[in-house]
Amino acid sequence: MNAPDAALPARSPVGPPDGLLQRLRAACLPEWHAYSRHAFVLRLADGTLPQESFRHYLIQDYLFLVQFARAYALAAYKADDVEDMRQATRSLAKIIDAETSLHVRFCARWGIPERDILAAPEATATMAYTRYVLERGAAGDILDLLVALAPCVVGYAEIALERMADPATRVEGNPYREWLEMYSGPDYVAVATDAATALDRHFARRGGPGRMPALEATFRGATRLEAQFWQMGLDRAT
Amino acid sequence: MNAPDAALPARSPVGPPDGLLQRLRAACLPEWHAYSRHAFVLRLADGTLPQESFRHYLIQDYLFLVQFARAYALAAYKADDVEDMRQATRSLAKIIDAETSLHVRFCARWGIPERDILAAPEATATMAYTRYVLERGAAGDILDLLVALAPCVVGYAEIALERMADPATRVEGNPYREWLEMYSGPDYVAVATDAATALDRHFARRGGPGRMPALEATFRGATRLEAQFWQMGLDRAT
Amino acid sequence: MNAPDAALPARSPVGPPDGLLQRLRAACLPEWHAYSRHAFVLRLADGTLPQESFRHYLIQDYLFLVQFARAYALAAYKADDVEDMRQATRSLAKIIDAETSLHVRFCARWGIPERDILAAPEATATMAYTRYVLERGAAGDILDLLVALAPCVVGYAEIALERMADPATRVEGNPYREWLEMYSGPDYVAVATDAATALDRHFARRGGPGRMPALEATFRGATRLEAQFWQMGLDRAT
Amino acid sequence: MNAPDAALPARSPVGPPDGLLQRLRAACLPEWHAYSRHAFVLRLADGTLPQESFRHYLIQDYLFLVQFARAYALAAYKADDVEDMRQATRSLAKIIDAETSLHVRFCARWGIPERDILAAPEATATMAYTRYVLERGAAGDILDLLVALAPCVVGYAEIALERMADPATRVEGNPYREWLEMYSGPDYVAVATDAATALDRHFARRGGPGRMPALEATFRGATRLEAQFWQMGLDRAT
Repeated sequence: MNAPDAALPARSPVGPPDGLLQRLRAACLPEWHAYSRHAFVLRLADGTLPQESFRHYLIQDYLFLVQFARAYALAAYKADDVEDMRQATRSLAKIIDAETSLHVRFCARWGIPERDILAAPEATATMAYTRYVLERGAAGDILDLLVALAPCVVGYAEIALERMADPATRVEGNPYREWLEMYSGPDYVAVATDAATALDRHFARRGGPGRMPALEATFRGATRLEAQFWQMGLDRAT
Repeated sequence: MNAPDAALPARSPVGPPDGLLQRLRAACLPEWHAYSRHAFVLRLADGTLPQESFRHYLIQDYLFLVQFARAYALAAYKADDVEDMRQATRSLAKIIDAETSLHVRFCARWGIPERDILAAPEATATMAYTRYVLERGAAGDILDLLVALAPCVVGYAEIALERMADPATRVEGNPYREWLEMYSGPDYVAVATDAATALDRHFARRGGPGRMPALEATFRGATRLEAQFWQMGLDRAT
Repeated sequence: MNAPDAALPARSPVGPPDGLLQRLRAACLPEWHAYSRHAFVLRLADGTLPQESFRHYLIQDYLFLVQFARAYALAAYKADDVEDMRQATRSLAKIIDAETSLHVRFCARWGIPERDILAAPEATATMAYTRYVLERGAAGDILDLLVALAPCVVGYAEIALERMADPATRVEGNPYREWLEMYSGPDYVAVATDAATALDRHFARRGGPGRMPALEATFRGATRLEAQFWQMGLDRAT
Repeated sequence: MNAPDAALPARSPVGPPDGLLQRLRAACLPEWHAYSRHAFVLRLADGTLPQESFRHYLIQDYLFLVQFARAYALAAYKADDVEDMRQATRSLAKIIDAETSLHVRFCARWGIPERDILAAPEATATMAYTRYVLERGAAGDILDLLVALAPCVVGYAEIALERMADPATRVEGNPYREWLEMYSGPDYVAVATDAATALDRHFARRGGPGRMPALEATFRGATRLEAQFWQMGLDRAT
């Protein structure tokens, strides 16, 4: 049985098996565990998460998405060549054109009108995580920025895949089924895999052993802030 | 009697009476009240704040100070002329050379060795506030940055002055007396007054009525995050 | 007769007649004249520009375009709301996906293989102009950035329209006819008009009379550097 | 005889003999030669440089210094720890407080009143070099920034030392003697040595073999722009 307190696999199911992502994740396993198996996620998977918590999360996730788009704009500005600019631009355009609209429609199905989303103030946990990523990117280089983004981009796929493989997860009749299927689905897993793979390409060009402590600190910081984003959803915190 | 729930004065005792600082503060009075009369402050003033809360705050305040120095470095980079560069450089040098050392000595008197300060992880509230300020400054101009810094720089003087004028405040025998006297003292009040005055000079050069909504949002955001910094101290939150 | 040394019209044919663009242009008429009626342009219009100068310009213009895309990525990061982010993202995606490829094909018709473009070092004039724009945008806000971009975006339409209206211009048999028709054509004029209109929207939100001297200095600086970009083409300078 | 066209020594006399500075310099020897033995320098050393060229250079060097101070402010913002922040802050404070004033007094002795310095427009070569450095630093990390600064900081010491060791140099009666003695003097050589040594410390922390091509491109770009700064002086170009 894959209980929530089962040992965390040493490797993420997403991304190259010996890549940078795996090293960063391995360097902060306790924090990764607290994030990837947060009560919010486990209760979402077994369908017991209060719907008000999910609605609160959905609204904050929209505000998060806007800041995330800004992070990809920053990545496009910081990219070292035209091919990397194109990749960051595609991510940016996808978020700001398609995903924000998808998110608004998803919210509508959960009874949240667009005006409520746009009127909602950012919760502290949303501000903390998003500004940390953006500021790391502004002060550092594109590798610092992409490492700060990785716990979110890659983590969501790992989390959804792990939950879908867990017997405790209830798919039929689970109000959060769509969320679980979206992030464990092939489209999103491909996005997460690309992001993990890109880390290695950037590390080859901008990395070196001396960078690991700072990159690990960035990855750990972002992972902690992701866990607190789940907690904010659970607590419906402002 | 100036009870904690007494009406907040319409004006700050610090800064030009009709300046930008006053308009920004007036635009977010509820948030300003929640910050300037936070339980942490009131209990610090009457001496009932748990000393562990104060120690937790002191350690986080050091980590805060380092990020604050970075904000003044960003201001020096963003300054529009040599005189503004000099002013920002003086603030930066003062923080990074003098105030960090003063802070370490102050912590030592509270029984906190330097190695504990340097080993402490940043609390979420510390990350949230500092990165918000820095990111606002990176994305915006020097006026955005200085407005994001103002609730801290000016607020501490207002808070300490208000508490010192409050009959409920206990000075004799209060373990936090040094803190109260430092921030209500003429040296710090001059620093806060200069910062408030500088806002007007920058607004004259970079402002206009159209900027007010965004500047108010920045000031409100920073004020909320300051209140949560007090709360973090009270809760000894990580 | 509209001789090159005829008085420059007080207004640009592009953009709102009383908008910010007109004020900025009016504040640096001598520099604008030196740019918009540079010998490179006049000789391009009458067909006497040495083809080697045009080829040199084309290669540098590709390198310029890449930096220009970076400027729009920076604008997307610095935008104050989602709608502005979308607009900047569209400009960025258009440049980095479509225009760079169009440019490569245009160069191919002029006998310049793609590998020559990619191998070419940036000329000083290319570096000077592009980094000035990007740095102004990094240190300032989105209004500073868009003002630094304006002489290029709007100027090319004004220049092409003015030349097409000039009897001294030779269209038939002019090797540069495609360039003249592209930048005076409705598609490009619409792009330039949108950019000029956007300046007013941003000024309403972030401007004020106090900003004019610095914005004029930025516009003048960028205009001077544009003229030197033409000169670099004429001189085939590195 | 150490004629201007003698082979350039494989190593700089400044900085650790096997450090990053030496590798970067070795990777662009032709450009380094064009910079360090530029006619401006050789004629300054033998006293035949037109005094108007020197005055033009002095004025632009003041404008350069202001942008250089901004680069150190950016380095203080981008520094990875408090010790590096302190170092960058000291450089910044020294430039913006002491060196700008020294420069003004030096200009006064050359008959250039302060108002002429402040009224002078930046020459293109000044803009090109300074904005290239600043933009490289904004888009990259602190290592990119310090590498872009190195040709100036270290180069001036190498240039002055090399000229002072050259029999063709005339010290007695040379109107530029003070310049030669200042940059070959122990105080400035110590500054340059510290800067070269700092590169190695930053490379250990943020480098790796994959970064060399981009760092070499940055160093080469900055070296080329330094040579063009000398040329601007010689030509009294605007």
